[in-house]
Amino acid sequence: MKCKNLTFENVNITGGFWKQKQDMNRNTTVWNVYNRFKETGRFDAVKLEWKEGDPCKPHIFWDSDIAKWMESVAYLTQKQREPELEKIVDEIVDNIEKAQDEDGYYNCYYSLFTDKKRFSNRNNHELYCAGHLLEAAIAYEKATGKSKFLELMKKFIAHIKKVFMEEGSADFVTPGHEEIELALIKLYDYTGDKQYLDLAMFFLDQRGACEEPNTLAEKFGVKYLQSHQPVRAQYEAAGHAVRAVYLYSAMADAAARTEDTELKNACEKLYENIVTKKMYITGGIGSTRIGEAFEEDYRLPNETAYTETCAAIGLTYFCHRMSQLDPSSARYANIIERVLYNGFLSGISLDGKAFFYENPLEIDLYERKMTADFEVEKRQPITQRVEIFNCSCCPPNVNRYLASLGNFLYRYDEKTVYVEQYMESDADLEGTRLSQKTNYPFDGKITLSVSGVKRQIALRLPSWCKNYALKKNGKSIDTSPENGYLIVATENGDILELELEMRPRRIRSNPHIRANRGMVALSYGPMIMCMEGVDNGGSLAGVSLLPHGEITLALDQTLGLLTLSCPALRQEAQELYSDEADVKAPPFTAKFIPYHAFANRGESNMKVWAPQSSNK
Amino acid sequence: MKCKNLTFENVNITGGFWKQKQDMNRNTTVWNVYNRFKETGRFDAVKLEWKEGDPCKPHIFWDSDIAKWMESVAYLTQKQREPELEKIVDEIVDNIEKAQDEDGYYNCYYSLFTDKKRFSNRNNHELYCAGHLLEAAIAYEKATGKSKFLELMKKFIAHIKKVFMEEGSADFVTPGHEEIELALIKLYDYTGDKQYLDLAMFFLDQRGACEEPNTLAEKFGVKYLQSHQPVRAQYEAAGHAVRAVYLYSAMADAAARTEDTELKNACEKLYENIVTKKMYITGGIGSTRIGEAFEEDYRLPNETAYTETCAAIGLTYFCHRMSQLDPSSARYANIIERVLYNGFLSGISLDGKAFFYENPLEIDLYERKMTADFEVEKRQPITQRVEIFNCSCCPPNVNRYLASLGNFLYRYDEKTVYVEQYMESDADLEGTRLSQKTNYPFDGKITLSVSGVKRQIALRLPSWCKNYALKKNGKSIDTSPENGYLIVATENGDILELELEMRPRRIRSNPHIRANRGMVALSYGPMIMCMEGVDNGGSLAGVSLLPHGEITLALDQTLGLLTLSCPALRQEAQELYSDEADVKAPPFTAKFIPYHAFANRGESNMKVWAPQSSNK
Repeated sequence: MKCKNLTFENVNITGGFWKQKQDMNRNTTVWNVYNRFKETGRFDAVKLEWKEGDPCKPHIFWDSDIAKWMESVAYLTQKQREPELEKIVDEIVDNIEKAQDEDGYYNCYYSLFTDKKRFSNRNNHELYCAGHLLEAAIAYEKATGKSKFLELMKKFIAHIKKVFMEEGSADFVTPGHEEIELALIKLYDYTGDKQYLDLAMFFLDQRGACEEPNTLAEKFGVKYLQSHQPVRAQYEAAGHAVRAVYLYSAMADAAARTEDTELKNACEKLYENIVTKKMYITGGIGSTRIGEAFEEDYRLPNETAYTETCAAIGLTYFCHRMSQLDPSSARYANIIERVLYNGFLSGISLDGKAFFYENPLEIDLYERKMTADFEVEKRQPITQRVEIFNCSCCPPNVNRYLASLGNFLYRYDEKTVYVEQYMESDADLEGTRLSQKTNYPFDGKITLSVSGVKRQIALRLPSWCKNYALKKNGKSIDTSPENGYLIVATENGDILELELEMRPRRIRSNPHIRANRGMVALSYGPMIMCMEGVDNGGSLAGVSLLPHGEITLALDQTLGLLTLSCPALRQEAQELYSDEADVKAPPFTAKFIPYHAFANRGESNMKVWAPQSSNK
Repeated sequence: MKCKNLTFENVNITGGFWKQKQDMNRNTTVWNVYNRFKETGRFDAVKLEWKEGDPCKPHIFWDSDIAKWMESVAYLTQKQREPELEKIVDEIVDNIEKAQDEDGYYNCYYSLFTDKKRFSNRNNHELYCAGHLLEAAIAYEKATGKSKFLELMKKFIAHIKKVFMEEGSADFVTPGHEEIELALIKLYDYTGDKQYLDLAMFFLDQRGACEEPNTLAEKFGVKYLQSHQPVRAQYEAAGHAVRAVYLYSAMADAAARTEDTELKNACEKLYENIVTKKMYITGGIGSTRIGEAFEEDYRLPNETAYTETCAAIGLTYFCHRMSQLDPSSARYANIIERVLYNGFLSGISLDGKAFFYENPLEIDLYERKMTADFEVEKRQPITQRVEIFNCSCCPPNVNRYLASLGNFLYRYDEKTVYVEQYMESDADLEGTRLSQKTNYPFDGKITLSVSGVKRQIALRLPSWCKNYALKKNGKSIDTSPENGYLIVATENGDILELELEMRPRRIRSNPHIRANRGMVALSYGPMIMCMEGVDNGGSLAGVSLLPHGEITLALDQTLGLLTLSCPALRQEAQELYSDEADVKAPPFTAKFIPYHAFANRGESNMKVWAPQSSNK
């Protein structure tokens, strides 16, 4: 038995930090996204009734927006049926059925604007939308047993296969925005029908290996959509970050199913390049808004960080799949944790209603106020979350992600259960039942009750954790981590107690990252912290941290989150240049909140990285 | 008698740091610029013999290049005749005479390309070239007594006056690139003929006060050429930095001659805005290459700093004129000193042969190597000086500037002589003769011998100097500075000895300057220092300074310049993000050289600002 990820169907998150997020998603967020999508005509578009002059002109990627939302409903339904939501999905499916062409083609935009030629513009998201619809359809059949949606999509996929693989009659060969590849492998996994894997492999194999038009090449270059090289020769993450990690996810999926070592090697190189050179401390990726893309190694500016919420999600998809290729290592789960508590979670407001598409690591309101007369537009990310965007891919992605979060908790094979993430939960791993009790990330105590089939338990020792204590049935166990796991033999009835020491930490980045030179970030457990002006007297411009000051922990009752206090100085604004001896920098206590909770109390300055000299 | 600046004709720089630069200019630099200009056809262009297909197509601003070079020859000649150079100038003047139109118009570009309509494109530098030619012609008549050049230019000015003031027949009202205004006031001063002041005032009064075409407005906005408001309402420095400070210089000149308080008020506001919000620590101005322009307050990035050499020169022109409007204050001379030893002098190589047009405050070779696939062009300044540019305004500007450097040393009225700059020199100020002996800036000792007419001496106490000792005829004098000057009554035969304490200083910038947060710069006397990779192990990425380390002084024999050594740490490149406790940062001694001497030993990393925590 190959090591596999336990899917969310077999895990229930039962309490604590993430249960609250999941409840919020079910009760608030899914409905809020629904209402905003409805108001903007995204659901009605499927009816193909829109006429020139009507408001809310349908857009090429609207099908993907509603697909991700439908997928969310499926995941929620899997755990607990939601008749009202299910009814909405059923209606949408009926509309899709009516809108679908006889030959199987479906895309609300092209079906409406029939003067536009199907599959003529590589960047027009038809295959991307098909992929999301397919993912939704699979999830919906699994959750409800209703097969209509998936049948429609299978018909569409058959059409795609014919056009692309058999006839080669489209104006391009591979999708502009990757997504369908990983969806096809899901369909292969679900049906066992190898033709779907073959189609996925066709798109992977042809990418960068054949000549095809790229309408965006002039603007961004072919790296933008990962078509600069055959995928097996791609070792450096490049281009549009969401497209990239969706592609890399499919590559990892394919490598796991085909034993394709070249593909596996490329995946490993790409992973390594991202996490050692192109990732923010928050786990965010894709640093520039220009092309929504990866930049060069170590180029990670803070205030203009693009770091799309969907890219953070996509990185965890890639990591999740990589752990199947390299089952013994905890490194992928460490990155997933970094993203979960930081760069993903910053994408949604604490009340669950509003979203960031971009997740900057700094907000400098003074800088923003300046209108750059002669400068090329220096657009910076928005400072407050909003309920919907014109390009609103992130909100329903957050919906489906939170609803299926259980996917990230466990991996297992016959011998071992890998505990990847710490969340209060019950799980069934083909006979081994695990019950986690924990207040994580508020503290580092985890109690794991094991029952059923005997397996050894591999508890991830987070990469940030230096000290820990492990007990089995109340007795201390002296064990050293192997590849990032503390491995303990267990049998039915055993109780493991793990205590991970959480303490405030000061982090430095590799000096190649220009933006962070001379600076530190604070963290606590898995959470990267930030300062906001609202807690720290408005401007953060003159703030520096004292290298030897003791950092203290507190609970902010309003936010319901842990905070840190660090002794700091605030340099006052004086002359343009002053002798250091004349500079006034009175001490104060800087308050840090978890990065993911920034921008929940109005517009404010914010920074993750603050100047601090070496404490040596 | 109003306080006036002593002109260079009455000062001889006799030894020391600047005498070496002046000798270099006379023996090497002027000839080197001549040869490069000759090779590129700039002198031959005046013959109007260029034909389509020939190399070296004449450019709209070539007349200004050769004009500034001729002006340099005039200034050199004023001190010591240079028959070979004079012969060259005489030939150019003869060619100009032949090329000049009957109506007085002269511009080698328009005279050659007769299909182009004269005075039809506001940005085509015809009036700018006329201004530089006029400055050269005045200087040449003063230096040689030869009047032909100035007669030709007076004829041209008469034509300009007719076209612009009388007929209004040009397609625009005021020059796109300011320069002629200050040249006309020079002509007014030289001839006493008020019509030239009137024409200058016409161009000043009309600027921003009338509708006129601006071909660059679409790209840069009308601020680019200071046409966004009437000049008396302009309080914030804006647009192309050289154009701006040439305009402000003319405004200050005009205000001094007309008692125009509104104009004076605007000049004071503009000056204040530049030096308190828009100036690099080197005295460089104009931070962005886009429009070669001032950016918003406090936006002063280091590695992309544009800070054109001509803009640095122009800032001192403005300051020099401001001191006439506000004679009691040393502030203008302090800024001139900052520019002289840093942002101006960096414009020329130590061997006098090559130039920087842009003077960045940081070079990061690693960052430069990266090709920005998806990023808009992030062009950075060149890292090595070159002998000529396509747009080669700076080299001859350096020529004329060094040759006339004596202009900045003294101001005087009936009662007081203001010693503005410290350079070994002899001067005659209408009867008061001063002889300065000093090794400045290598140390802070200045000996001043006074003879002739009795005046009190006001010695500038540089703004960077905290401690000083002053003696008259060997006896200590206890005096406090007034408006930045130490004022001593003197009579014939008195000897003043001033000792300014020079010590290494750590400078912090106003925290509004993003780029310098958490950083310090080192300085010594008037010199801002920098680190170069060549002295500091290559990469400067991980370098931070220790806040309490003692900084020591040394002489670099190769450079012939003072250097500083400061205890520092070098953070090693490790993981992307590491616990500070795990970061390796071994100590080393960082060597700093004067900023103006950077890039004289091959391509190297460089930085002025380095991370350092507060030393409190």
